[in-house]
Amino acid sequence: MNEPVIQLAHGGGGQMSAELLAEVILPALGGEVPARELMRGLTDSAVLEHVGSRIAFTTDSYVVQPLEFPGGDIGKLAICGTVNDLAVAGAAPRALSLALVLAEGLAVDVLRRVLRSAADAAREASVSIVTGDTKVVERGALDGMVINTAGLGEMLPQARLGFERIGEGDRIVLSGPLGEHGLAVMCRREGLGLASELQSDCAAIHVLTGALLAELGADVHFMRDPTRGGLAAILAEIAQGARRDIEIDQRSIPTNPTAVAAAEILGLDLLTVANEGKLVAVVSADSADRAAQVLAKHGIASQAAVIGTVAAARDGPLVEMVTHVGGRRVVQMPYGEELPRIC
Amino acid sequence: MNEPVIQLAHGGGGQMSAELLAEVILPALGGEVPARELMRGLTDSAVLEHVGSRIAFTTDSYVVQPLEFPGGDIGKLAICGTVNDLAVAGAAPRALSLALVLAEGLAVDVLRRVLRSAADAAREASVSIVTGDTKVVERGALDGMVINTAGLGEMLPQARLGFERIGEGDRIVLSGPLGEHGLAVMCRREGLGLASELQSDCAAIHVLTGALLAELGADVHFMRDPTRGGLAAILAEIAQGARRDIEIDQRSIPTNPTAVAAAEILGLDLLTVANEGKLVAVVSADSADRAAQVLAKHGIASQAAVIGTVAAARDGPLVEMVTHVGGRRVVQMPYGEELPRIC
Repeated sequence: MNEPVIQLAHGGGGQMSAELLAEVILPALGGEVPARELMRGLTDSAVLEHVGSRIAFTTDSYVVQPLEFPGGDIGKLAICGTVNDLAVAGAAPRALSLALVLAEGLAVDVLRRVLRSAADAAREASVSIVTGDTKVVERGALDGMVINTAGLGEMLPQARLGFERIGEGDRIVLSGPLGEHGLAVMCRREGLGLASELQSDCAAIHVLTGALLAELGADVHFMRDPTRGGLAAILAEIAQGARRDIEIDQRSIPTNPTAVAAAEILGLDLLTVANEGKLVAVVSADSADRAAQVLAKHGIASQAAVIGTVAAARDGPLVEMVTHVGGRRVVQMPYGEELPRIC
Repeated sequence: MNEPVIQLAHGGGGQMSAELLAEVILPALGGEVPARELMRGLTDSAVLEHVGSRIAFTTDSYVVQPLEFPGGDIGKLAICGTVNDLAVAGAAPRALSLALVLAEGLAVDVLRRVLRSAADAAREASVSIVTGDTKVVERGALDGMVINTAGLGEMLPQARLGFERIGEGDRIVLSGPLGEHGLAVMCRREGLGLASELQSDCAAIHVLTGALLAELGADVHFMRDPTRGGLAAILAEIAQGARRDIEIDQRSIPTNPTAVAAAEILGLDLLTVANEGKLVAVVSADSADRAAQVLAKHGIASQAAVIGTVAAARDGPLVEMVTHVGGRRVVQMPYGEELPRIC
């Protein structure tokens, strides 16, 4: 394919579409796509065998700007984000779809880099990209590209997760410092000098969820990844879903000093900033320290810590935080959008 | 929700996101979403049981403009298109994901109509929307909305489909007239008066594929739906995939006179225009007439006809058409994009 940028005709379903697929998309995805037939051939559908009798199914679209940022890009994000949704459901990720909407004028080199990065992330997460789709829209109708991935996973037999399993006394475990993804993207977008130091935490966390379930089984009551809306949104949802209060201790939350500094400069609350490689788990009190130890064996969770406790609701479900200076503040569900197009 | 248009904050993952979901998206999808937990609660993942041991998995993004057109809209299209990809793979559609990317400023009423239409289409196709996602991008970054659906289906035991099953003497069966979808969208976009008469053929065709497989079993060798690139692209792919020639007879192709007139006005070749409710099946010679009869029992395929034959390749795989006047012309794989953003 000789064109340096994407053209409308690459989305027409004809010969130019076939060339884009054969000469750019499939080679960039490399070994992750077993055969051309899987993306556009036999039926446009992949046929999967032995996925298991209980299947987790999820989807996310990714609209992050800029497309490439310190620590990742939209391709890596689209793989890790969907792998992580499967992981926190208690599933082992098995197969992903990858659907591209490209803007006319997008540099083919950017597309190649993003897809190579997606393929690398899929390989690291031991998940296959088995089916896909490519559309092209005219210049000005879209910034760069949007990626959608849907994921299939096999439910792990040990997984017994749900709001209804959360009880008083349960502990909240967090796998690492907050805000790195959202702040890395914002620093790049705003041209802040810190950008060179702060990396997105974008990573697949199925190794963490798999290890927790293998070691602690039914003592793991609930898991989520704190993406849009950050830890604040996840804890508010857990409190509402479990109809209980949650108290966290700010002093026990792991920190990344660069992220703390960036949040101060940008005037953002770390609790509400998106993460893309972190796990929040609710576990029984007896297993909490062990949960943190199990997580901390993995590089991406080396700072894992027990950060809070579930309690009876006093006056409607509420999340409170004991602050560094020993005061108390309510942690609200964020209202709207502090950081648009962060994931 | 009081806002008449979508705002960036509706995509933030906070309280406004929750309101959009609870007050607009889930009510519009109605009974198609069993519980709020399926779209954003327990884990963002749906857990499915008994989907079958052989699963078909597919995805498509929909970027059609305008969002609403005679005979359908982007919501109905997003359901039918993905149901059809599963159907032609030989699968019974079981579950869909639905991921929205909305532009700031989109009228909430339009969103509601599109989602209701998607829910109606899903109900008619007996498929459940089980998981979803909503993102919002800033005004000017996207026209209106993009929808991605991914689909899971259970492979039908009778299905034995593949390029390798196509043999010399096999017949090509087409379920109805060509070009209605692409031309209905183009007429609306260009403001042609014909628009009031010409309707998109947008429909789920799993009833057709299911009936063919039930009645003819392994005599059905291959199925596809002629969407982007039209019948010309599908036949070229079949010829290449089967390494054989295909000859079709223009006089046997069912026609819609309004579509023929619209194609003439717009200067388009009906063979290359997108359809969204048509089936192309390759069947053994003995079963061809019966295949057309089986299809014709269904309203959406009342004009089904045998339109061509597979032959040995003489000089590389080639598709030829005997024309109305008895001449012969080569049917080429379309090169680029005749009709951008048609699906």
